[in-house]
This record gives sequence, structure tokens and C-alpha cells, in this order.
Amino acid sequence: MTTTIAKGLEGVLFTETKLTFINGSEGILTHLGIPIQEWAEKSTFEELSFALLHGRLPGADELARFDAELRANREVPAELLSVIAAYPKGVHPMQALRTAVSHLSLFDAEAEDTAAEDRYRIGVRMIAQFSTIIAAIARAQDGQEIVAPRADLTHAGNFLYMLKGSEPTAEEARLFDIALILHADHGMNASTFTAIATASTLSDMYSAMTSAIGALKGPLHGGANEAVMDMLDEIGSVENAVPYISEKLDHKEKIMGVGHRVYKFFDPRSRVLRDYAAHVSEKQGKSHYYQILETIEKEIVDRLGSKGIYPNVDFYSGVVYSDLGIKKSFFTPIFALARISGWVASVMEYTANNRLLRPDAVYAGAKDQTYPELSDRQ
Amino acid sequence: MTTTIAKGLEGVLFTETKLTFINGSEGILTHLGIPIQEWAEKSTFEELSFALLHGRLPGADELARFDAELRANREVPAELLSVIAAYPKGVHPMQALRTAVSHLSLFDAEAEDTAAEDRYRIGVRMIAQFSTIIAAIARAQDGQEIVAPRADLTHAGNFLYMLKGSEPTAEEARLFDIALILHADHGMNASTFTAIATASTLSDMYSAMTSAIGALKGPLHGGANEAVMDMLDEIGSVENAVPYISEKLDHKEKIMGVGHRVYKFFDPRSRVLRDYAAHVSEKQGKSHYYQILETIEKEIVDRLGSKGIYPNVDFYSGVVYSDLGIKKSFFTPIFALARISGWVASVMEYTANNRLLRPDAVYAGAKDQTYPELSDRQ
Ligand SMILES: CC(C)(COP(=O)(O)OP(=O)(O)OC[C@H]1O[C@@H](n2cnc3c(N)ncnc32)[C@H](O)[C@@H]1OP(=O)(O)O)[C@@H](O)C(=O)NCCC(=O)NCCS
Ligand SMILES: CC(C)(COP(=O)(O)OP(=O)(O)OC[C@H]1O[C@@H](n2cnc3c(N)ncnc32)[C@H](O)[C@@H]1OP(=O)(O)O)[C@@H](O)C(=O)NCCC(=O)NCCS
Repeated sequence: MTTTIAKGLEGVLFTETKLTFINGSEGILTHLGIPIQEWAEKSTFEELSFALLHGRLPGADELARFDAELRANREVPAELLSVIAAYPKGVHPMQALRTAVSHLSLFDAEAEDTAAEDRYRIGVRMIAQFSTIIAAIARAQDGQEIVAPRADLTHAGNFLYMLKGSEPTAEEARLFDIALILHADHGMNASTFTAIATASTLSDMYSAMTSAIGALKGPLHGGANEAVMDMLDEIGSVENAVPYISEKLDHKEKIMGVGHRVYKFFDPRSRVLRDYAAHVSEKQGKSHYYQILETIEKEIVDRLGSKGIYPNVDFYSGVVYSDLGIKKSFFTPIFALARISGWVASVMEYTANNRLLRPDAVYAGAKDQTYPELSDRQ
Repeated sequence: MTTTIAKGLEGVLFTETKLTFINGSEGILTHLGIPIQEWAEKSTFEELSFALLHGRLPGADELARFDAELRANREVPAELLSVIAAYPKGVHPMQALRTAVSHLSLFDAEAEDTAAEDRYRIGVRMIAQFSTIIAAIARAQDGQEIVAPRADLTHAGNFLYMLKGSEPTAEEARLFDIALILHADHGMNASTFTAIATASTLSDMYSAMTSAIGALKGPLHGGANEAVMDMLDEIGSVENAVPYISEKLDHKEKIMGVGHRVYKFFDPRSRVLRDYAAHVSEKQGKSHYYQILETIEKEIVDRLGSKGIYPNVDFYSGVVYSDLGIKKSFFTPIFALARISGWVASVMEYTANNRLLRPDAVYAGAKDQTYPELSDRQ
């Protein structure tokens, strides 16, 4: 008898979803059947969040009400801001974000409620509050005053405002909105899956979201965008790009920002982001970073394209974020800022028809042992 | 084409393990090939933790060193204790535990380290520190002084000491030690699996442990022991037990503390715990709770045994904990106090041969949609 191990659960189908569809060999991504490129061009993060949570597009009135609900929920308890302000300086922002979101539950008398409407209510509030928490962590780490949210700005605009303390231009706010759209959901990725695994025990929303933050943090998942920027700094010059990549590949090391469990072709999000990265660099007279990335992309596609290794969403996102004045260490928190909508929507979809996630492992250890007295051991 | 969905990932084998073996139809559980009954009878929580972490039993010197390491690591930063003392009263202890463990990472300059030896070092420290954190949360919630750990007591004895502020008897400490042994590891249960999913992105140990706490908290997993006590209080009298169960089953409601994804027979841990629960009740002149449980067990086995529904580990544990003077709301944190050894060991085993956990879902939503202008929508 041979037992097949589904390593990494690759290709294992554990549930049904109506939210996101990915065709990895052709590089197609849709939400509610609409291609990601259309969402990026025509929609807003607020609207996509509604669509994911409700499984349909909102009407104009509904969208206005949902947007108003997000705006009304941006504040977090003052006690939480004091706790955040007291976090030791220099900690990883994702450790801080996970801790703050977990702490937020302690101020919510209804944190334990897990009926569908409770998950929705807490989820929407957290979508709004994540931006306030992340901006507060960034300001506190820089020793700056925490900036209170403003209800007259869009979700994207308000975040940049809280982060920098000054209002972004319309173009900046829209560019950031597009980045949020591109990262909002992506099927059963590791952080969404971890959120679902947590919620499948019928645990609460705060637990599901803190689990997701912890998973997103890893360098094989959301942490890759930061690692791409580290790589760019290490490479330093366009001339050094090809030798650097060759050396890494020769040593069987992974290149950050390329490769994907599902895409075996260009990740469509990376194409949208590349266009913005190109635009941004042109504006600044052809940025250094962008040129290095273009060179790496060509080299990767030449050398590894036949193996299905292509740039993923994290490859160009850092260049765009840098242009928006966001520090490298906050790239992954920003991923969380966007992905929370997918997390909440996926947890709601799964728990509506819940089953405890409890797989199994092949036992490969000793059998039929007895407990030897301590004195009888070698 | 039919696609099979592995709902709840039941029976899906995603990795190999040498730690724990379960034969669910015969009710067998072993760690390193040694039956759980032998561990409970002859070993200690400290020794089982070593065995899980190292994949082998310790020699006498090794065990002494490991024990000394645990004792030396019991303290947590004073700042963390102040934060815990300031948590709002009345919050769910598992929300508090998740938050405190996440917060602990902010005081660890090496929290981000993920090499095998780092995971081990942080893991061992957390095994020691969980007891201090849980006891501190309990004391703070009761408005009592937090009690500092003592290095001259066993892991189990020291926990009871910190919880109650007075030294337990040798019998109490040993009974609690056995409860910890019985809960230390259990294969790919939902919280261990969630810890692994988090770590599979190569995220850090604090992230993996906070994810696990969040998953353990749910009423389908660790939260069940507390729910059993709620049920006993609701039932109130032995006479009411059968009518209560019948009524629940007639309404297709689940009974807490019975049923298991893997066991389709008596969970061997429930047999060990039943014996202790019986002993404890006899001592007190046949406790009320125990009699109700015996009655329910008989009814469940009669009515649902053929369906593979039998008492699980949570069925009798509450009676034992109550006897030790532990409050109902701390039953699940105590489960975490024990299971952390399994979490750390399983994360180490998985990441030694890591692959990102990233399953897939069947897409059942709309296809080929275009984005309609807001004004064109109904
Ligand atoms: C995302 C990722 C974890 C998916 O990996 P996976 O499905 O588990 O694939 P594996 O790691 O098993 O890799 C399969 C093969 O492709 C190679 N490969 C995968 N990603 C690679 C990368 N980034 N650089 C170089 N080679 C890579 C592997 O070495 C392996 O080759 P082999 O078959 O010769 O051993 C992986 O591509 C990766 O680590 N990428 C870098 C991190 C990243 O950018 N993550 C963000 C994803 S949005
Ligand atoms: C542990 C548990 C989640 C495992 O469940 P699972 O493998 O997903 O099994 P399912 O929930 O699909 O149940 C299978 C069948 O057994 C029945 N069943 C399972 N647990 C039951 C329970 N506790 N009481 C009554 N019936 C139960 C289900 O109703 C279902 O019946 P059906 O086939 O007629 O619909 C489940 O047994 C349970 O919820 N138990 C109570 C909570 C508990 O004690 N958890 C601690 C486990 S250590």
C-alpha cells in the first residue's frame, strides 16, 4: 500500500468559493467573475470590499451606506493607542499589528459573538480600523504624534493622510487605492487559509484575523515584498542584476517576488503593478529600482519561465509603495490592510457552511514501544 | 467531470510525523510509540515535552538539564505583567492569552529568528512562560496580586502555586501534571494544524503560537471543556440528564465533549481522566457532576456509539480541574498550557522539511462578467 502525501496541500480542494477564480496557467484572476484589471481600473477598495463580503456588486445607495459605515468606524479606543505608543521601538511592524489587533478584542464587549451578522459587523469595523492601527504603529515607531482618522477622505486617502500627517494628492490616493484593490483577495492563499482554519473551530473574528496576520508575515507569503526591496538594495546597480541572480540560482536559492503556488505564468497583478511602477519611475527620470527589476524579470523568464516561475504580485509593488513614501518595513502591514477584506469575506463564506479543518499525517515513527525507566536508558 | 471536495480536510494526509500516532477505531494514542496510559502513569509533563521536541526520550542528565532550563525561563518581562494587569476585567481569558503571547514577542529582540535552533530556544522559553502568563491573567482578573514563579517547584506544581498563591499538595500537583501530559499533543488537531499553516510561510514562533491559541479557543476544539461544564450546570441534576440529552439530540444539536474527527471509539485520554474524575468524586462523596457525566456517557454510547460518537478528552477534564480549584473560564487556557509542547514540536518537525501550506477551492461563482457602471445597476 502506498500512501500519497499532499505536500503543502497543493491542489487539494477543501471547500467551494464564489469569490475569486484563478487560472494559473493563463494568468487570469477574477473576483465575482470580473477580471482584476477591470477592478483596478474602474472600482475602489471600498466597493471591492462590499462585493467580497456580500458576493455581489452594490447599488449606488448601498455603496454610499457601506462607505459611510467604514468612515464611521475608523476610530479605535484611546487606550489601544496608548498601548501602541508604548510598544518598544524597532519591533517588526507585523508583530506590532498582530498584537494590536489581538488587543483590540479586549475592548469589544461582543468580541465573542460568532453569528454571521456578528462576524460581518466585527469584520467591517476591522477593515476600517486596520488603517488606523497600522498608521498609529508607523507614527509611534518614528516617535511622531499619532494622527486621528478623518471621515472626509477615502479609505486609501485617509490611510496616507494618517501615515504622513498631510493629505495625499488625488493621484497618490488613487494609486494607493489601486494597490489595495490588487491585494484585497486571492483565493485560498496561506493567510486566508489560516484565518479559515482558526474560524473552523468556531473561534471568534479577532482570533481569525490575528492568525491571518501571523501567516501573512512570513517571507514565503506577504513578507516577500519587503524581501524584494532588500534584494534591490543588495544588488545596487543594473549591471549587478544578472550576476546576482545567476549566483543565487546556481546556489539553488530562491529569488524573492517570483514563483507562485498557483500561477505558472505572469501573475496579472504583477502586470498592472509593473505599468504603475514604470509610470512612477518615468516621472522620476527612470528609477534605478525599476531598471533592476526589469532586468531581473527578463532573466527569470528566460531561465525559469519553462519551469513556471514568473514575477508575482510582490515583484513590483515595493517600487510603487516607495514612491508613495512608504517605508519598506510597512509593505507587509499594507498587504494586511488590503487583504483583510478577503480574510473577512472568506471566513464568512466558510463558516456559513462550516466544518472543522482537521487533516491527518502519515505516521512514520516508532511503534509498540514501552516506557523505559530512567535508570535503564543509555 | 466530478471534483471531490475534501470537506474539513478529513483524512487528507499532508505531511509525515514521528511524534504521535492515533488509531481512531480502536482508541489508541501513542507518543513515540509509547501508549498515552504509560506516559500518564510513569512520566512527567517536562519529560514528555522533551520527548516531543527531540523525538526521543531523554537520559537522566538531559532531563535534569531540560527541567532546569524550563525553571530558569519562567519569568516574563515586568512590562508585560503591567500590560496584563491593565487588561479590562471580564474579557475571555483566551483573548487575553493570545494578546499577551503576541505582546511577549515585542520584548524579544530575536523574535524574528526562524532557524531550527531559534525555534527551539523560543519554543522552550514559551513552554515555561505560558504558565506565568496564564496565572497572571487569572490573578489580575480576580483583582489579586500577580504571583511570581518559583524555581523550586515542578512545572505543574508551580503553575498551581502561581494561580492560587499557595503551594499545592503533592497529590494535586501530580494530578495536574497528568492532565498536562494527556493534553500535550494530539497529532494534526486544528490548533496544531493552524500553527503549522502559519509557520509554513516561514513566519516566526510567536505568530505560530498566537494562531494556535486562536484556533484552540473555538468551541469545536479546546473550548469544548468549558462548554461541558456549562452543560452540567444547565442540566443541574442526575434525573435531568437523559431528558436533556434526548431533547438536544432530537433537535439535532451537538453535545459538547463527545464526538471526534479521528476517534470513532473511546478516546483513551477520556478513560484515564474518567478514572481520576471518579477518584476525585469519591473523595468528596460522589460528586454530582461526575454522576451526571456517567449518565450522559451511557446514553451517548447507547444512542450514538454505532455512529462512532463517544466521549472525548474534554468530557471528564472539567470535573478534575474543578476539583483542583480551577475556574471554568480557565479550562481552555490550561489546555493551551499543555498543548504548547505539541505546537512547538510539530512546528519544528514541519519546518525542518517545510512547504508552504496553500490548498485550493472549487470555484462555484459567476464567470465572464464585466464591470457594470454604478448607474447601470439595479
Ligand atoms: C511562492 C512559493 C512559496 C510557491 O512555492 P511552491 O508552490 O511551494 O513551490 P516550490 O517551493 O515547491 O518550488 C517548485 C520549484 O520551483 C522553484 N522555485 C520556486 N520559487 C522559486 C523562486 N522564487 N526562485 C527560484 N526558484 C523557485 C523551486 O526551487 C522548485 O524547484 P525544483 O523543483 O527544482 O526543486 C515560492 O515560489 C517562493 O518561495 N517564492 C518566493 C517568495 C515569494 O515571492 N512569495 C510571494 C508569493 S505571492
Ligand atoms: C469534534 C467534532 C467537531 C468532530 O466533528 P466532525 O468530524 O466534523 O464530524 P461532524 O460534525 O461532521 O459529525 C458527523 C456526524 O456525527 C454527529 N456528531 C458529531 N459530533 C456530535 C456531537 N458532539 N453530538 C451529537 N452528534 C454529533 C454529527 O451530527 C454528524 O451526524 P450526521 O452525519 O447525522 O449529520 C464534533 O464531534 C463536535 O462538534 N463535538 C463536540 C465538540 C467537542 O467536544 N470538541 C472537542 C473535541 S476534542
